[in-house]
Amino acid sequence: MPLITLLTDFGLADEYVGLMKGVILSINPLAKIIDLTHQIDPQDIVQAAYTIKSSYKYFPKGTIHVLVVDPGVGSSRSVIALEKDGHIFLAPDNGLLALLINSKKDDFIISVDNSKYFLKNISRTFHGRDIFAPVAAHMTNGVKLHEIGSPIDGEKLTQIKMPVPHTLSGGGIKGSVIFIDRFGNLITNIDADLIEKNINQKKNSDIKIILGNKIIHGLSNNYKSVNIQSPLAIIGSKGYLEISVNCGNAKQYFKAQKGDKVMINTHQQNHGFIK
Amino acid sequence: MPLITLLTDFGLADEYVGLMKGVILSINPLAKIIDLTHQIDPQDIVQAAYTIKSSYKYFPKGTIHVLVVDPGVGSSRSVIALEKDGHIFLAPDNGLLALLINSKKDDFIISVDNSKYFLKNISRTFHGRDIFAPVAAHMTNGVKLHEIGSPIDGEKLTQIKMPVPHTLSGGGIKGSVIFIDRFGNLITNIDADLIEKNINQKKNSDIKIILGNKIIHGLSNNYKSVNIQSPLAIIGSKGYLEISVNCGNAKQYFKAQKGDKVMINTHQQNHGFIK
Amino acid sequence: MPLITLLTDFGLADEYVGLMKGVILSINPLAKIIDLTHQIDPQDIVQAAYTIKSSYKYFPKGTIHVLVVDPGVGSSRSVIALEKDGHIFLAPDNGLLALLINSKKDDFIISVDNSKYFLKNISRTFHGRDIFAPVAAHMTNGVKLHEIGSPIDGEKLTQIKMPVPHTLSGGGIKGSVIFIDRFGNLITNIDADLIEKNINQKKNSDIKIILGNKIIHGLSNNYKSVNIQSPLAIIGSKGYLEISVNCGNAKQYFKAQKGDKVMINTHQQNHGFIK
Repeated sequence: MPLITLLTDFGLADEYVGLMKGVILSINPLAKIIDLTHQIDPQDIVQAAYTIKSSYKYFPKGTIHVLVVDPGVGSSRSVIALEKDGHIFLAPDNGLLALLINSKKDDFIISVDNSKYFLKNISRTFHGRDIFAPVAAHMTNGVKLHEIGSPIDGEKLTQIKMPVPHTLSGGGIKGSVIFIDRFGNLITNIDADLIEKNINQKKNSDIKIILGNKIIHGLSNNYKSVNIQSPLAIIGSKGYLEISVNCGNAKQYFKAQKGDKVMINTHQQNHGFIK
Repeated sequence: MPLITLLTDFGLADEYVGLMKGVILSINPLAKIIDLTHQIDPQDIVQAAYTIKSSYKYFPKGTIHVLVVDPGVGSSRSVIALEKDGHIFLAPDNGLLALLINSKKDDFIISVDNSKYFLKNISRTFHGRDIFAPVAAHMTNGVKLHEIGSPIDGEKLTQIKMPVPHTLSGGGIKGSVIFIDRFGNLITNIDADLIEKNINQKKNSDIKIILGNKIIHGLSNNYKSVNIQSPLAIIGSKGYLEISVNCGNAKQYFKAQKGDKVMINTHQQNHGFIK
Repeated sequence: MPLITLLTDFGLADEYVGLMKGVILSINPLAKIIDLTHQIDPQDIVQAAYTIKSSYKYFPKGTIHVLVVDPGVGSSRSVIALEKDGHIFLAPDNGLLALLINSKKDDFIISVDNSKYFLKNISRTFHGRDIFAPVAAHMTNGVKLHEIGSPIDGEKLTQIKMPVPHTLSGGGIKGSVIFIDRFGNLITNIDADLIEKNINQKKNSDIKIILGNKIIHGLSNNYKSVNIQSPLAIIGSKGYLEISVNCGNAKQYFKAQKGDKVMINTHQQNHGFIK
């Protein structure tokens, strides 16, 4: 059962996503298409990169993930395909796959340039429909990676500055808010492993999570563990530190924005307020 | 053809719904998944309860309806499954199924506690992906209700205060606005049956529908039966009394909000303006 | 593989679209349903007409396109079906198919009136669920056009004033903005063919695109061909002239609204600013 997921910043106000599906089903009427999300903030490659990283493993192996956050559409940027963990990823070469490509020499990456698998007329502004959708559809029909283009060295890919968390001398971790969801939850780029390895707490209440001029003491196990309208920090469903407000909206509570810095440390690792 | 519907308050801005579908298709690649809605107002259990009640009968028997409006996620609230009219409903035990459970002793209700059918790692904040989706998927693979948990007595379920309409001494019905749709239509909880039984009109123009300090005279058969930008009352597609404005927006016209009281009576049943 | 597309102005906040799908799958569990868009601006028949015109060819032949932008629901307006280019279109008779019906005498048009294929109870406000969805589903089960109603003469259909571009005496084309997408791109009704036939330029930089009191010189091949935050004109993915801002929002840049007039001409065809 050939499965394709779509992740874009197209939104759902327009027919763009529907057209991609039409192209796919014209090539393979049996393809199954799942919308991962179409509401990546316009042209936010970082958000898209974190989203696909934490999402793809929930889909069956063999899934083809089509990722179109593509401010460079129509320019000379390449389209690339990556095979990893039994999944295929199709994306513009703009850094969108940066968090998936661990060892640039080991991954199998293709520069997608065989126009035989594109639509005949390529528009200047909508490669999602004209290139990504047909290539993915042909792959569900059995076309192999090496047929859609030529291998390229990962080191030749476009590099972007990706906000990654880092540990602080003396202990503690500094990261940032990567996205803010519908409920106002602040999702950071500090993952559970990093916390476990670097936050050397004696007891949970020693942990401090600092955002702006506010401190949260300790990690919570669920939203209800604090009072209504009180803030909390929790390892969220993506595996990242999230900051929430029980029955409330953390974005409003903290007047937070995407990109805001977040620090987690312990009493012993105190660095004062975040700069 | 196994069919699953999803009703949540997750919205479509994030990848949450896409992940639930990934989990379902990882377990049963043949499952068919329909979005009923993901835009229940955040944590509005009442709206969700009315929506599933008026919706489920439009799906084929055998459908599994997955309902995740779940402010108590991560706390000790149970997940329950209800079999009714040949449909299966999976929901948190928070009142969401209250309008479907007529006779608490007669319905077949299961407390879903067999973790064999959950994902291995259960997050604290996203049981839609980790519990609801995999349980529903396993059921489309043939797993039976009695395998996913143990029967429980409907009287032990969480009770919530559900806004239900009531008849007034002397005649007339008092209800409230349950939701407001994209077009600004005000959908009440007063259903057509209740009106037929309790509104003893001589002629349609005797009927008065009262909202705030405005009165609508008579029920309309269609939007065009009044002038452009004029208000009307109509039995809507859900089977409930709705208040609309022809080619306009009733929410704006009446400055209405969810929860506003609505009264319907006749000349003989006049109770004055609504309090 | 029977395929149905849905184009409506229902939005996704409510369960209306989900109910249409439930009805379709109750009649044909194997039907495949694709959302073209549900965010046509409420009751904007013109936007819907242009959208289906530029979209349908991306779906396989045999697809049934269900179009519900229907301010006249519940009145005496008819439902019509059109067969064209191997596609079927179901829509209210309100002008929505006007751009598809070229020669009113040649097209095969049906007035859909065989209630055998409707739901038993027809609501006054939701024919999408009660008429359009079941008729489309029955057609995917093999019911033919002549079974769902009787042929009618295209000249008897409802006519609407559709904003179409026209050429100007002395050269140049005057059209208008038909929709504005999520990115703020302004999509006009001036198509590439019309430009090619009527804009007699010596060189690209002679072409002027005029919107409000601003002029864009020349057509671009991609967004990156102008500076960041600079405006450009381009033949967009729908085949129409679009006005955009590189990495910006043309709607805001031009303070543009749907319906705004757009002119394209050359130095030789100068008509001054647009009125």
